Amino acid sequence: MYRIGLDIGGTGIQIGLVDEKGHILERGEIVTNTSAPFSEQVHAMASCVQDLIDRSGYSLLDIASIGAGVPGVADQKTGEVIFCTNLGWTHVPFREEFRKYFDKPVFVDNDATVAGLAESVAGVSAGSSSSVFITIGTGIGSGIIINGRIWSGAHGVGSELGHAILELDGEPCTCGNHGCVERYCSATAIIRMARELLARHPESSMMDACEGDLKKINARIVIDAAREGDPVAIKVFRRFVKALGQTIANVVNILDPEMIVLGGGVAKAGSFLLDAVRAEVPNYILYKDLPFARIELARLGADAGIIGAAMLS
Amino acid sequence: MYRIGLDIGGTGIQIGLVDEKGHILERGEIVTNTSAPFSEQVHAMASCVQDLIDRSGYSLLDIASIGAGVPGVADQKTGEVIFCTNLGWTHVPFREEFRKYFDKPVFVDNDATVAGLAESVAGVSAGSSSSVFITIGTGIGSGIIINGRIWSGAHGVGSELGHAILELDGEPCTCGNHGCVERYCSATAIIRMARELLARHPESSMMDACEGDLKKINARIVIDAAREGDPVAIKVFRRFVKALGQTIANVVNILDPEMIVLGGGVAKAGSFLLDAVRAEVPNYILYKDLPFARIELARLGADAGIIGAAMLS
Repeated sequence: MYRIGLDIGGTGIQIGLVDEKGHILERGEIVTNTSAPFSEQVHAMASCVQDLIDRSGYSLLDIASIGAGVPGVADQKTGEVIFCTNLGWTHVPFREEFRKYFDKPVFVDNDATVAGLAESVAGVSAGSSSSVFITIGTGIGSGIIINGRIWSGAHGVGSELGHAILELDGEPCTCGNHGCVERYCSATAIIRMARELLARHPESSMMDACEGDLKKINARIVIDAAREGDPVAIKVFRRFVKALGQTIANVVNILDPEMIVLGGGVAKAGSFLLDAVRAEVPNYILYKDLPFARIELARLGADAGIIGAAMLS
Repeated sequence: MYRIGLDIGGTGIQIGLVDEKGHILERGEIVTNTSAPFSEQVHAMASCVQDLIDRSGYSLLDIASIGAGVPGVADQKTGEVIFCTNLGWTHVPFREEFRKYFDKPVFVDNDATVAGLAESVAGVSAGSSSSVFITIGTGIGSGIIINGRIWSGAHGVGSELGHAILELDGEPCTCGNHGCVERYCSATAIIRMARELLARHPESSMMDACEGDLKKINARIVIDAAREGDPVAIKVFRRFVKALGQTIANVVNILDPEMIVLGGGVAKAGSFLLDAVRAEVPNYILYKDLPFARIELARLGADAGIIGAAMLS
């Protein structure tokens, strides 16, 4: 049997026909039309799914289920999307609407959670029964797998590691709180820290890389400069790694998963990041002499969204 | 069938014969002899268990299993206690040693985890499939129940909420790290904050309560004074509740359990504490308009240690 996975984003929707091992056999894509009513958006997705199945040479009879990852909160039991700001959805009956087109089980969950599931089925954490996936981009998302199953919480509002508080009365966050994890260890945090230091250290090589325009600073410029030995960039990178190390140690101290998987744009820094994080985490865990989670980079890249959505059950 | 539960502490060991509903039918107690070799300590416990069974009128045939809660880290799979400072145990084969006396399944887990299990079977969180138990005393312990089962992590080092980091580079902790949760919301934290403020505010009613001796300050004096309106005590209590509120919100944002249960000495402050915490938590959770964990006080008190140990499986 095969499964359909939809990776629903604020700008585009990636759709795939996925086999049981997590390989994507056929792909489709549509542009997200956030101004259209919810039912029309689902209609467009359903049409794309049908096209993709037709194109693939398989039939609906070969499809076991349809799953979707959304950048928001979903109720796994009812299939309702409770909250999805980028798409303008609040309390929409995703499963019910999708089932008007397909008489198949329909699942929906948070996109970071879905990516974590993908890694745990077909990626770097395959074979581990518990893992926490941390996606480091503009913000921080996370997905928790316990006993081989997604754990999004009793009310579906869990695995929001990016908005756990890492500093009492710390940096103001877009969510309205202060001191949230993602204020210290996201791409946004790297950019903020770099701009602060560059104002005082215009001699940094990052200044050339951004053509003297601090608005052009991004996480890649900072990490590349740190890798090449720029002292200012190294300072930013170390602060970032320290906060990420403490965050990962918190996950170890609270949840103690078998593995912790780092994904998202910033994780593209690869072994430079991984080695630094692996060296930092042991400083903050409680039982320093006992085994704890293996920390690895995600393997599936952007495909994790489609694969994990297809694996929802 | 009945079960034996042992609540193993640094000064005493409480033992109980427990029925399937979590009622303690017969009790025994011995003094912890930390200077004796491990095998002698287990021998003393086993003798007490045998006495208790004899006294109860039941026989070994009525006993399904034996469980123990320890103030440390255990490997649930092997029945080994990895680490238990108060008892001087490091990598001791608890199950193996106990089974020399009883041909029964023997289980061992962390004491806070065991208390959380007790509440989830026979206490305030009975019937909820996920809960986090937080015991607030000298330090902070916790127990995590997910899908009706204990989750102590893949390596048994999880549910150490007291040593999650709540403040980057914050207060030094006895564990060697900085900014751990228990530096801000334990009895120890309340005492520290009260002493700091009393040095500048000797007019506080707490000064009389501790007979002018800051060494006599304890959490109860502070909370009682706060309840009676002492402004200095209220300041301490508010700081404590704020840190505890942020910690509980972190549990909601990451784990989203159905219930959060507050136990331990400080929770004896009752509804004065509970009302304050319930008012504080919503300030720090991410999805303020969505349902989240019900927060309640533990119900089983000190018996949770015996009952939960007996419920281990």
